[in-house]
Amino acid sequence: MATPDAKPAKTAVQLKTPKGTRDWSGADMHLRDEVFQTITDVFKRHGGTPLDTPVFELKEILAGKYGEDARLMYDLEDQGGELCSLRFDLTVPFARWLAMNNIQQVKRYQIAKVYRRDQPAIARGRLREFHQCDFDIAGVYDPMIPDAEILRVVVEVFRALQLDITIKMNHRRILDGLFAVSGVPADRIRPISSAVDKLDKMPWAEVKKEMVEEKGLPEDVADRIGGYVQRSGTIRDMLKTLQADAELCANGDVKAGLDDVSLLADYLEALEVADTVSFDLSLARGLDYYTGLIFEVIVNHPSSTLTTANGTTATIPAESVGDGSEEGAKQQSASKKGKKAGEDPASQVGSIAAGGRYDNLVGMYGRRQIPCVGISFGVDRIFTILKARREQEEESRRTRLTDVYVMAFGGKEFDGLLLERMAVARRLWDAGVRTEFAPKVKPRLPQQFKAAGDVPLAVILGQDELAAGQVRLKVLGQGEDDEKDRGRLVAMDDLVSEVKKLLL
Amino acid sequence: MATPDAKPAKTAVQLKTPKGTRDWSGADMHLRDEVFQTITDVFKRHGGTPLDTPVFELKEILAGKYGEDARLMYDLEDQGGELCSLRFDLTVPFARWLAMNNIQQVKRYQIAKVYRRDQPAIARGRLREFHQCDFDIAGVYDPMIPDAEILRVVVEVFRALQLDITIKMNHRRILDGLFAVSGVPADRIRPISSAVDKLDKMPWAEVKKEMVEEKGLPEDVADRIGGYVQRSGTIRDMLKTLQADAELCANGDVKAGLDDVSLLADYLEALEVADTVSFDLSLARGLDYYTGLIFEVIVNHPSSTLTTANGTTATIPAESVGDGSEEGAKQQSASKKGKKAGEDPASQVGSIAAGGRYDNLVGMYGRRQIPCVGISFGVDRIFTILKARREQEEESRRTRLTDVYVMAFGGKEFDGLLLERMAVARRLWDAGVRTEFAPKVKPRLPQQFKAAGDVPLAVILGQDELAAGQVRLKVLGQGEDDEKDRGRLVAMDDLVSEVKKLLL
Repeated sequence: MATPDAKPAKTAVQLKTPKGTRDWSGADMHLRDEVFQTITDVFKRHGGTPLDTPVFELKEILAGKYGEDARLMYDLEDQGGELCSLRFDLTVPFARWLAMNNIQQVKRYQIAKVYRRDQPAIARGRLREFHQCDFDIAGVYDPMIPDAEILRVVVEVFRALQLDITIKMNHRRILDGLFAVSGVPADRIRPISSAVDKLDKMPWAEVKKEMVEEKGLPEDVADRIGGYVQRSGTIRDMLKTLQADAELCANGDVKAGLDDVSLLADYLEALEVADTVSFDLSLARGLDYYTGLIFEVIVNHPSSTLTTANGTTATIPAESVGDGSEEGAKQQSASKKGKKAGEDPASQVGSIAAGGRYDNLVGMYGRRQIPCVGISFGVDRIFTILKARREQEEESRRTRLTDVYVMAFGGKEFDGLLLERMAVARRLWDAGVRTEFAPKVKPRLPQQFKAAGDVPLAVILGQDELAAGQVRLKVLGQGEDDEKDRGRLVAMDDLVSEVKKLLL
Repeated sequence: MATPDAKPAKTAVQLKTPKGTRDWSGADMHLRDEVFQTITDVFKRHGGTPLDTPVFELKEILAGKYGEDARLMYDLEDQGGELCSLRFDLTVPFARWLAMNNIQQVKRYQIAKVYRRDQPAIARGRLREFHQCDFDIAGVYDPMIPDAEILRVVVEVFRALQLDITIKMNHRRILDGLFAVSGVPADRIRPISSAVDKLDKMPWAEVKKEMVEEKGLPEDVADRIGGYVQRSGTIRDMLKTLQADAELCANGDVKAGLDDVSLLADYLEALEVADTVSFDLSLARGLDYYTGLIFEVIVNHPSSTLTTANGTTATIPAESVGDGSEEGAKQQSASKKGKKAGEDPASQVGSIAAGGRYDNLVGMYGRRQIPCVGISFGVDRIFTILKARREQEEESRRTRLTDVYVMAFGGKEFDGLLLERMAVARRLWDAGVRTEFAPKVKPRLPQQFKAAGDVPLAVILGQDELAAGQVRLKVLGQGEDDEKDRGRLVAMDDLVSEVKKLLL
């Protein structure tokens, strides 16, 4: 019977997180930690060393690195002193760190949040505060060896995450050479390249239309491009085809690129990664700073992965991974055009990792060039896929990871046995076992079973058993039977070892 | 022979991190990760569930929580939309999360950076971007059970970190009652309390002087206070003394506080923690929001811990842990007065963890009160102590954690065996072994030994051995002998198991 007058007079604080941000807790947080741990294990296996940089950088460090996307940067208020902005990606702070410390070679990884004042779409996982997870190899090495290792890292990460993927790969110099041979003027290569990059989302006819009508390319030039960029296949097959094309190979960039890819093919075979790679001439990647190998990772069977248990289809975030929102914008516009683009669900998912070689970025800080190749995993997008799969598999979504719940029961004279429960918990903690008990002096048994929730084991104390130096140990999860069957007797001194056996 | 003219004309970007921030990498980063992992393991052992909140919060959420320290808050620039600030601690975001999600009970932990525009002193580890590491128990429970578990968590953390500590403990209601009984007017209790809190850094005569001369307290009132607050001892001894003081116990606050501490004593004994606790009536803690138990953790023998290998004394950061810079300021001023305060090095170290019960903070968001008790670990300060100890022990400071370096050697016809090295690395990676190899086609053997650095094992390939299906496995670290002795022969198929045996 609330009347308008019943509203509280004072304006309460709005209880929310800032636009485009979220809290992480419970099952989501556990799954996110699992993903981070899995990826970190692979990075360490390859000699990766962690780097952590401040959440904000001097504005002048970030300036001139992101083109027009820089308008999405979060600035700190000028409160006197230096002007700073929140980091926009992890690549520029890495380049700053290399230059600042004059580091000649390193394998570094970093998992951290980055910040972009983009239009958020939280339901699709498109946030203003989101994660990047980068592994980069910096240093002067023999050609393509680090590049091959990066692709090996990609394969190991997704094998560990049990995601079936394809690495789409291309080479900037082959692409640039191919445009030149087709008759694209040097100053038109980047815009034409960005049109070609949409081929995974649009049919060729539409891409051609954009090149001819919007970008003013002669139709015969567009057709020549089309003859090349619609090709993809295994590295060996594509190499054979391209190396047989005398006109193409006469171009110095193409020749150099093919030499790189040829070396790479040998290395990927030695590393047993070649089968996962598709050499796709339409792959262009958004950012200007790539100078050699470029690649993107897509999930092979997203349709089966993405149907959730209740039959709805999980939506995969379309934000950019790794290198700026140009990519994200591309995918957003592509998903609007989803129906025209055909019904392949893979095209809706977009890439879940991406990277390439960037040999000139560190030199922008006015010191020595340090060639780099790296990969950025789109953790939020990977998280969304794994979460949908986990829900589909109806795996338990435990919010805590406690192993043992210590309970007590008794008759009329029952005093709750709190100190005894504490002493048993202390034994288990001392042994490293994750243990809880009801923080009540005299809890009732049903309360304790309820509080135990999804904890797998119970230790149940009773006055008589304690007097005999014993406790009851019970595997939980038997539903109704839990309260009837109070488990088997175990000597107090054997408790830790018995619990550990059951937890194995 | 550089002349002034030789200077580069263009103004280079200043390569630095913003004031009061730092990068973390190499051995520091590994040690920091170890500390985080150790602490997290203990939190999980107690049923803790992780929370991660955005790095910035709405300004109005943070408003009115930090008193005059709020001037140290970092604001984001108003770029249209909501006004936000970087988080100042982890307690207020936790309270916001509890209120926003109407969570009635939880054990949550959070390890994250917080931001304060304080005057940095980087050499002493006093930074503007620094870590907090919080564990809090929220919910209505029987009295003192969660409080006892928090102290147990403290003991387990420092036992795991192998730091010998004392928990100094007091109770806000005992302290308030004691001031009232001594004759302090109610509105003078907080300033007098803050003077008393300096007793661990100053002799009583100085504290008394401050109370009488600066804060206008009658001398006899100050003397009565002095009679109480200079007392500390075991919980049981102090309880006996205080409970025997009829005048004190007639005060309702004192009585209630002593009942709490009496319960706590039982629980701490059951949890085998009581020996670590000192009941210290001078402990007051800075923040207003504490309502019951308060505590601080100090290192027992910092002098031995803090002398580094080269004989210099490591300086421990003096910033606040957990609850605002008031504490930090107090410690800074105390360290200026270090000589007057006597030569006990413990007084220079300050607290490395602190916390208490705060039952009214969540209710400030206009919803239901949720009583909380928590602890905040000063991770940067703990890190500094452990780093000094590690240097003292001259432990290896490995910057990477690679287990195996795969090498090759050969005579005149040696082609570098790159593909073979890759194939062996791939085998080891498949088995989860952390492996690297020289990213060169034809590396020389000394180069490879140099690159292996502190990696403990080498697998050495030779053409003849490979032809026989064998490789050489060698434990590194023999200095000069490394290049002469090329290890023992192992069948390729046994390599993984042999390596794993050596890594155990």
